[in-house]
Amino acid sequence: MNKEQNTFSGSRSALAHPPIVQMAHGSGGRMMHDLIRNFFHAHLVSDQLQKGDDAATLAMGSSRIAFTTDSYVVQPIFFPGGDIGDLAVNGTVNDLCMCGARPLYLSAGFILEEGLAFDELERVLQSMAAAAERAGVQIVTGDTKVVDHGKADRLFINTAGVGILEHDHEMGARCLQPGDQILLSGPIGQHGLAVLSQRQGLEFSGEIISDTAPLHELTASLLAECGAAVHALRDPTRGGVAAALNEWAETSGVEIRIAQNKIPVLPAVQSGCALLGLDPLSLANEGKMLAVVASEWAERALQVMREHPLGRQAAHIGEVKAGSAGWVSLRTELGAWRVLAWPSGELLPRIC
Amino acid sequence: MNKEQNTFSGSRSALAHPPIVQMAHGSGGRMMHDLIRNFFHAHLVSDQLQKGDDAATLAMGSSRIAFTTDSYVVQPIFFPGGDIGDLAVNGTVNDLCMCGARPLYLSAGFILEEGLAFDELERVLQSMAAAAERAGVQIVTGDTKVVDHGKADRLFINTAGVGILEHDHEMGARCLQPGDQILLSGPIGQHGLAVLSQRQGLEFSGEIISDTAPLHELTASLLAECGAAVHALRDPTRGGVAAALNEWAETSGVEIRIAQNKIPVLPAVQSGCALLGLDPLSLANEGKMLAVVASEWAERALQVMREHPLGRQAAHIGEVKAGSAGWVSLRTELGAWRVLAWPSGELLPRIC
Repeated sequence: MNKEQNTFSGSRSALAHPPIVQMAHGSGGRMMHDLIRNFFHAHLVSDQLQKGDDAATLAMGSSRIAFTTDSYVVQPIFFPGGDIGDLAVNGTVNDLCMCGARPLYLSAGFILEEGLAFDELERVLQSMAAAAERAGVQIVTGDTKVVDHGKADRLFINTAGVGILEHDHEMGARCLQPGDQILLSGPIGQHGLAVLSQRQGLEFSGEIISDTAPLHELTASLLAECGAAVHALRDPTRGGVAAALNEWAETSGVEIRIAQNKIPVLPAVQSGCALLGLDPLSLANEGKMLAVVASEWAERALQVMREHPLGRQAAHIGEVKAGSAGWVSLRTELGAWRVLAWPSGELLPRIC
Repeated sequence: MNKEQNTFSGSRSALAHPPIVQMAHGSGGRMMHDLIRNFFHAHLVSDQLQKGDDAATLAMGSSRIAFTTDSYVVQPIFFPGGDIGDLAVNGTVNDLCMCGARPLYLSAGFILEEGLAFDELERVLQSMAAAAERAGVQIVTGDTKVVDHGKADRLFINTAGVGILEHDHEMGARCLQPGDQILLSGPIGQHGLAVLSQRQGLEFSGEIISDTAPLHELTASLLAECGAAVHALRDPTRGGVAAALNEWAETSGVEIRIAQNKIPVLPAVQSGCALLGLDPLSLANEGKMLAVVASEWAERALQVMREHPLGRQAAHIGEVKAGSAGWVSLRTELGAWRVLAWPSGELLPRIC
């Protein structure tokens, strides 16, 4: 009996951590974070990769540029409010914006599944072209691969982007300081819930559409007005606000405290999440921004964000403390404090 | 009978051109060329995309940079002489070199299939790291997505690259002029045949291994020695030398004439191709270069190439004529001239 128990618990533990890639490794939570540290950072050693920012900032001749990449595998490829095409443009544009760069050029790499209909491909390309125009970027280089039917899922898109840094102050995940204030540009969770509802054929009372949008104007105004007082920016995509704040807290070695009742969430998202047992804080966003701003500039920064259509509902949601380094604390609606952990497990796979 | 014939020929033609993506659209031949023109160029309009070069050359602040991307879907992911990891580094490095840039930074986007073994991932990452070191580039930004088992094929990698242009002469697919000479850096066809033999479990008399290698030193010496006399460079990957020359002839509106007996092909590749009914001119290479050089510089350029280990067997294979604009002519071993057409059909899918 003892032996059997041991054998059983042995296999259970092996099953819990088999040495293979699982869906949860792609979901933006703790497992993905660990995979990236243990494999990608361990082998592809680069100071830039270690920084934990959305884009690398690099010297290029006499200029400073930002460089980033993302692959898009969202399923389904068309969803309320957007599709894989505009997502692939906006996502990469936003990663450049988040390190304070002005996005200029994108590359686009397509992996097409044999059998993909030309008219679907065309819809996606039209949507990319429109998104690029809106974001003021040019798609300047591309690549197309085709794989056998059943070896991809209709189409995957990779975009990489380069932008120019027109300021020289240090900002990013390592730059949070005790006393800094945390701002959020608008209500959260729409993108994650829109994709999920389309995938599962769910209908909610209010229409939920993805918030996919380029944030270049919002970040440009913020940096123009508040300059070096902006210590970090992040678009909370996979893993949502919870993952973004945890990564910041860990990288800067600070505590982040936020108040649940300050976080804007649309009623339809609130009730959809309640129904499905999801936390809006862990849902992906594709047109929202978290900003860390020096305390004395917080009011002005909030004002600047609210002046832009994409920041109309911006909110001051919390602050940075020396406190428990590496932790995110959430004051619940009832006034109690709890730890806001890294999202774990599968969450919503293939959300972007 | 007549009606039946018509019906039959009607459906055949529909089958030949269904409005869907086929494997042949990814093989580097005429169908891929047309897909790119009719879809990608039609929608993602950009002067850079229209140029038909391996990389875009762009102004960035006061610097000029090159920017390129490629996705890698090679199957199998490990093959004689290399794997998907070093291929993903060398391929993108070479695209930057081919527009005369010095490669500096790469991005790496991974699409992992659920169930991929960690030790395979690790082997690929080690191989990427070694290739990056050899090519003198840094991998500075990355992304990881996971898709369900059966929705990808173990792993796909996208790399994008940026490099700096340290000269300012115009070169590329549009710059071929009558009188220019065509050089080839070494024997062709190894990569294509190595991947194919691994995939099909074939064994040839001589060992055939992929030629995957970074060409940055070769292009740097060539440009340092011959400068603006170098009118175009191209690494003949998918579709091989045949596709590269056809694209040049079409883009520059010139005729290209080459001599079959001048083209270096290893005996093992020659016999492997004879056995399988393949043409070495249509096989992919991953460490070879075609160069178009002004006539009076051809001898010196050939010498420079032969001084580098990767150009030891460089050959002068042909020349550019005003003649039949858009065509590539091949003088066969027997002295007859024939058209060297765009490779068509499936060729070898998923070769890179």
